[in-house]
Amino acid sequence: MKNSIIIFLLFNFLSLQGQHNEKITDSGSIIKKGIENIQSHLGKVPLFDASLQQVKEEVDEEMKREIRVPVPKDLAGGYTHERHKKNYATAQKAGVLYKILGEEKYAEYIKEMLLQYAKIYPDLPLHPAERSYARGKIFWQSLNDSNWLVAMSQAYDSIYEYLSEDERNYLEKDLFLPYANFLSIGNPKFFNRIHNHSTWGNAAVGMIGLVMKNDELVNRALYGLKETNIPENARDDDGGLILQEGQKAGFLANIEEAFSPSGYYTEGPYYQRYAMYPFMMFAKELENKRPEIGIFSYKDGVLIKAVYALLNLTDADGDFFPLNDAQKGMSLLNQSVVIAVDAAYYYGDQDPGLLSVAERQGKVSLDDAGMAVAMAIEQGKAEEFKKQSIDLTDGPQGNKGGVTVLRSEKADDVFSLVFKYTSQGDSHGHYDKLSFSFYNDGEEVIQDYGFARFVNIEPKNGGGYLKENTSWAKQSIAHNTITQNEKSHFNGDFDTGNKYHSEKYFSDFTKDNIQVVSAIEENAYPGTKLHRTLALLTNDIFQKPVVLDIFRIDGETENQYDLPFYYSGQIIATNFEYETPDELNKLGTGNGYQHLWTEAKGIAPGGNTRFNWSYNNRFYTLTQALKSNDSIILARIGASDPKFNLRRDPVYIARKKNTKNALFISILEPHGSYSPVTELGSNSFSQIEEIKVILDIDAYTGIEITGLQEKKIVFILSNEESSSSAKHQVKIKEKEFSWEGPYTIITK
Amino acid sequence: MKNSIIIFLLFNFLSLQGQHNEKITDSGSIIKKGIENIQSHLGKVPLFDASLQQVKEEVDEEMKREIRVPVPKDLAGGYTHERHKKNYATAQKAGVLYKILGEEKYAEYIKEMLLQYAKIYPDLPLHPAERSYARGKIFWQSLNDSNWLVAMSQAYDSIYEYLSEDERNYLEKDLFLPYANFLSIGNPKFFNRIHNHSTWGNAAVGMIGLVMKNDELVNRALYGLKETNIPENARDDDGGLILQEGQKAGFLANIEEAFSPSGYYTEGPYYQRYAMYPFMMFAKELENKRPEIGIFSYKDGVLIKAVYALLNLTDADGDFFPLNDAQKGMSLLNQSVVIAVDAAYYYGDQDPGLLSVAERQGKVSLDDAGMAVAMAIEQGKAEEFKKQSIDLTDGPQGNKGGVTVLRSEKADDVFSLVFKYTSQGDSHGHYDKLSFSFYNDGEEVIQDYGFARFVNIEPKNGGGYLKENTSWAKQSIAHNTITQNEKSHFNGDFDTGNKYHSEKYFSDFTKDNIQVVSAIEENAYPGTKLHRTLALLTNDIFQKPVVLDIFRIDGETENQYDLPFYYSGQIIATNFEYETPDELNKLGTGNGYQHLWTEAKGIAPGGNTRFNWSYNNRFYTLTQALKSNDSIILARIGASDPKFNLRRDPVYIARKKNTKNALFISILEPHGSYSPVTELGSNSFSQIEEIKVILDIDAYTGIEITGLQEKKIVFILSNEESSSSAKHQVKIKEKEFSWEGPYTIITK
Ligand SMILES: [Ca+2]
Ligand SMILES: [Ca+2]
Ligand SMILES: [Ca+2]
Ligand SMILES: [Mg+2]
Ligand SMILES: [Mg+2]
Ligand SMILES: [Mg+2]
Ligand SMILES: [Mg+2]
Repeated sequence: MKNSIIIFLLFNFLSLQGQHNEKITDSGSIIKKGIENIQSHLGKVPLFDASLQQVKEEVDEEMKREIRVPVPKDLAGGYTHERHKKNYATAQKAGVLYKILGEEKYAEYIKEMLLQYAKIYPDLPLHPAERSYARGKIFWQSLNDSNWLVAMSQAYDSIYEYLSEDERNYLEKDLFLPYANFLSIGNPKFFNRIHNHSTWGNAAVGMIGLVMKNDELVNRALYGLKETNIPENARDDDGGLILQEGQKAGFLANIEEAFSPSGYYTEGPYYQRYAMYPFMMFAKELENKRPEIGIFSYKDGVLIKAVYALLNLTDADGDFFPLNDAQKGMSLLNQSVVIAVDAAYYYGDQDPGLLSVAERQGKVSLDDAGMAVAMAIEQGKAEEFKKQSIDLTDGPQGNKGGVTVLRSEKADDVFSLVFKYTSQGDSHGHYDKLSFSFYNDGEEVIQDYGFARFVNIEPKNGGGYLKENTSWAKQSIAHNTITQNEKSHFNGDFDTGNKYHSEKYFSDFTKDNIQVVSAIEENAYPGTKLHRTLALLTNDIFQKPVVLDIFRIDGETENQYDLPFYYSGQIIATNFEYETPDELNKLGTGNGYQHLWTEAKGIAPGGNTRFNWSYNNRFYTLTQALKSNDSIILARIGASDPKFNLRRDPVYIARKKNTKNALFISILEPHGSYSPVTELGSNSFSQIEEIKVILDIDAYTGIEITGLQEKKIVFILSNEESSSSAKHQVKIKEKEFSWEGPYTIITK
Repeated sequence: MKNSIIIFLLFNFLSLQGQHNEKITDSGSIIKKGIENIQSHLGKVPLFDASLQQVKEEVDEEMKREIRVPVPKDLAGGYTHERHKKNYATAQKAGVLYKILGEEKYAEYIKEMLLQYAKIYPDLPLHPAERSYARGKIFWQSLNDSNWLVAMSQAYDSIYEYLSEDERNYLEKDLFLPYANFLSIGNPKFFNRIHNHSTWGNAAVGMIGLVMKNDELVNRALYGLKETNIPENARDDDGGLILQEGQKAGFLANIEEAFSPSGYYTEGPYYQRYAMYPFMMFAKELENKRPEIGIFSYKDGVLIKAVYALLNLTDADGDFFPLNDAQKGMSLLNQSVVIAVDAAYYYGDQDPGLLSVAERQGKVSLDDAGMAVAMAIEQGKAEEFKKQSIDLTDGPQGNKGGVTVLRSEKADDVFSLVFKYTSQGDSHGHYDKLSFSFYNDGEEVIQDYGFARFVNIEPKNGGGYLKENTSWAKQSIAHNTITQNEKSHFNGDFDTGNKYHSEKYFSDFTKDNIQVVSAIEENAYPGTKLHRTLALLTNDIFQKPVVLDIFRIDGETENQYDLPFYYSGQIIATNFEYETPDELNKLGTGNGYQHLWTEAKGIAPGGNTRFNWSYNNRFYTLTQALKSNDSIILARIGASDPKFNLRRDPVYIARKKNTKNALFISILEPHGSYSPVTELGSNSFSQIEEIKVILDIDAYTGIEITGLQEKKIVFILSNEESSSSAKHQVKIKEKEFSWEGPYTIITK
């Protein structure tokens, strides 16, 4: 019923179109032929029709009200901010509707709005709020002003032919040219960086330049300002450096610098998703109007690769892994990702796997790319988008560490392990070298905290970053990695962290029963070498794939090492004794420790330490080969949190004191299930009898895992030679092991 | 593909049937005509076929292994316990398969198993575990022995004709008769109660009696043992009294006593769901074999009404409200409810609303009732099961208070408010007089804790009740109701609580803009009268329906009154100052207070107190008209919890000290929404300008609510006269209000 109404409406639009078709020429990312193609398929391609209908409802609803262009005044969440955001979003969409449906009312609406902006713009001072390193005029920061121009360029483009030459001249002289100049020449600190801010600025200036046929603007956008006088130590609001040595600028340089050759964006997927919009929108227009640049082949096609990187950095429900500053729940459903996926399909290799992602997104972009995707889906071409284990390098040349995702499926469970050994990740980076997180389907079993921020929720610091983002979320102890002596990596100093990156030691996804990745960090704590190896093991002795975690520390001095596991769920059983205090105290005094309440303290028993919990009707056990007298701390986030800004999530911390070298061997084992409906549980106990270090010398570490019925697995790691062709021979308790490559696994 | 395999398999079974059909006669709840009807529809009724296929797979899988009948030894979760459970469940299902499919292997399997039991039973001593007030022989408690016999009666019934007379005589003499005698004559404390335990015992003895055609057993089951010598103060494992004065016994008496006339079961829906199985199974067999009893009309058809009561005590996802001892997540998907719903359809009025419940359950019982339901669904007869606001009385005569559910929908949100003013609820009752909980869709906005127990999770006290169930979950402070002087209702004494019940004052669901319920509790704290009125208001000034909560306390002495709200989610903003301590201390020393960590303490400001939080991408505000200097405590469950048995859930507590009479006026307001994908929030602020007490005298309480734009609502409650025809006239600030009935609401 609902469907037939949509189709009926669309046929109605079609009958109204003829009158304006002659006004539509090549524009923005939809060329004339594209428009005709789209129009000829209206009413026949459900996903496109539904997407169009949704936009139409939204715009028609907004157009019922008078256009309002208030004098800028408020911060995010406030009236003028939200009004101007709504204006540009509506204008951009109205432009699409005008192009596709040809209804004059949409063009009129955009024209009227632009004229109102043109009237106030020449006299607009800087926005009154002084929070930003690069204040805007319409908004408190130039970033939002750029968002406006990216959208308004599209709107203007849509009605370019609809306007008279006088009208165009007026708008360009009083609004668009000064606007573009302000964002670029007027804001070099903002425009000439390698940063998502600049990407927005570049795209804004370039997109309006393309519409205005102003080559100077387009070139400025592509290659940056030639001259600036930015002070060398200038920083942005997040403390990020504006200038890097030898830095290039402009859109192309941002593509060069922002993405690694594998498409990873150094700030992480949350910010990549945000940056993808200007990258893709400007790229699509360049592809249409400056095809000679070959933008989608630029840097070996990195814009398309970036889409794959993004999709691979999602859990089973499509939520991005919250690396660095990131909001949990941000997912591939986001509009920027819709546009990116459609573009990757259309301008890339028409990968049928992308179609299933588009199906899941439930909408397409309203242009050639979106139509191509919707039509291909309608033709039944969609195939599953198969996420595999993957290495993503970091850094423009791909030589600054990276992120590895190990994946494994078993029956109903899809496991993903995310291992981070990147560079700092710019101003949104966290001090999280060699941290990992672990997912069962879309659920976080071992979580990364994400950021401490409530985006667009006004009572929480106007929706901006909370101070707990710095005091907690960025700190090392907030991550599933080593903290030495209760100090964060690089002592929490951005400039220091920014100089270094971890190094991948090796990874191997070629075997059926093991996937493994290993990386080394030597700079987080000068004098201490951190070496972590994570393997996803599949074997009869386990009910489901397990994570083997070998964290080897080589220190010059005696230190305290803390290794946390931010598990989700409720404790079922432990095999160690612990004391729960009558009052809760903070675990420490700074570097994130002040945010943890110590709920219990225990001592590792002889033999293995077992920690068993349940989460989302599954059971998990962390088994560790600790030394007896190592300590175990059960803590919970939430101390020193006067505004309840932090989630009250629990953590298990294994602690070694007064030790130079240390070896943390852990197995994270998902097992069993429970149903509150049948009240039946299965396999609530670990299947692991014992894990034992059978060798630990500079050159090798050997681990033996004993399952039920005395079945054994031996894993030996070469600690100093990662070459895949190197030959090794080791004798452990009279038994010879020989193999090629950085590790061996023997199952019997 | 999968479907066609199932259908193919079923046709195969059909071709095998002929040879055994002659052996099938009226049996259990499926009469011969029923069997033929089922057989003739196999392969044509998807829901039935799927249910049958599921059972077949399960039984076939189990039948691959040898039958094992080990000597009883273990508690729940242990090997012998789980083995015997699996045995009876498989035998019961194999019986169904034999009847429907006619395959001899199922009959053979049951026969073999029963012979093995018959061999060991005569010499079995009491089960070695001494935990139960009524130990069993196969299991540690007679309750589980009864579960066994209920299932095995059905299995025996299925193969009755398949067995030779000698075999039957042997089984009855060595197994079934002594088994039934042991559960009844041998266990009067267990058999002769009004309790779900006895219902199981009665059904077990009655069902085997029906198969054996043993009237004495059947009558014993229906009417109880005539003579017992149970000590007057005997108690069960939960501390419940075995004997009540003037108590009848037997299955019919249990129907009489267990259900109120509206079908409410005094222990609450979680235990009702458990009890429904023996009630329904025995009733179905009685209806077939003793139709003269008219079991489904008994007590005005209360067994059918009980099914409706159960379905009405679920949230939007079909989870039972966790009143009294209850596991969260237990839902209408439970097998007992499947059987109950199908029976209510078949033996009741063929209500098409029940069909949609069965669809949601995704399976049917494998008998006449289930086939009728599956066929009706296949014929497209299903209609929505519409849950309305409802009063359910408590007590056999319906005069012991009750539970009211108020419901209201708005756009995507379905709100349910559950108000409990029942009697104690037997040994599974909580000290929760006048407590409420509030749901948005299936999510708990204001939660009831449920029980402190991990059913069938062995490391948690063998799956049994945890001591925190008594020290925390049952206590008044664990509930959204008043605790006076940090003592639970009835001072936490079961015998005292068991004597009393709250009284409904009135309820009214007749109006569009308000649904209201009011109840009084005068015995929880001698000398203090508690009177709570809860209304669900729909009005332009609110974005969604809100809860108005008027809690009026009339005390004889000066007391401290605590009113908690166990909200789910994270604090966004408050309008009051509070201090967060550097160390966390327990809120109190006993009666549940020892389990709360005090996270913050605040003082109510002049005017209203506002507490705003977000949960599951919705916003909520609790606005209270407190006196300035009333205190506010933000606390969290988890203190004095050495085994991490409790969830770390938060609570907001409003506290009044040193006061005789007190009035807590609260509005719980759902508003706005948030998306982590678009990062857009709407209406994160309350729409309420002010709530004010404009009158509070013995006879009347008047509240004025002011929304944005100065819109006002006045609600006046008659505190002493609840008659719907009484006329009232009140002057407040020169304004006359006159109305009929216990309350009036004026909106302007
Ligand atoms: Ca997820
Ligand atoms: Ca629920
Ligand atoms: Ca739900
Ligand atoms: Mg930033
Ligand atoms: Mg992080
Ligand atoms: Mg009990
Ligand atoms: Mg309760």
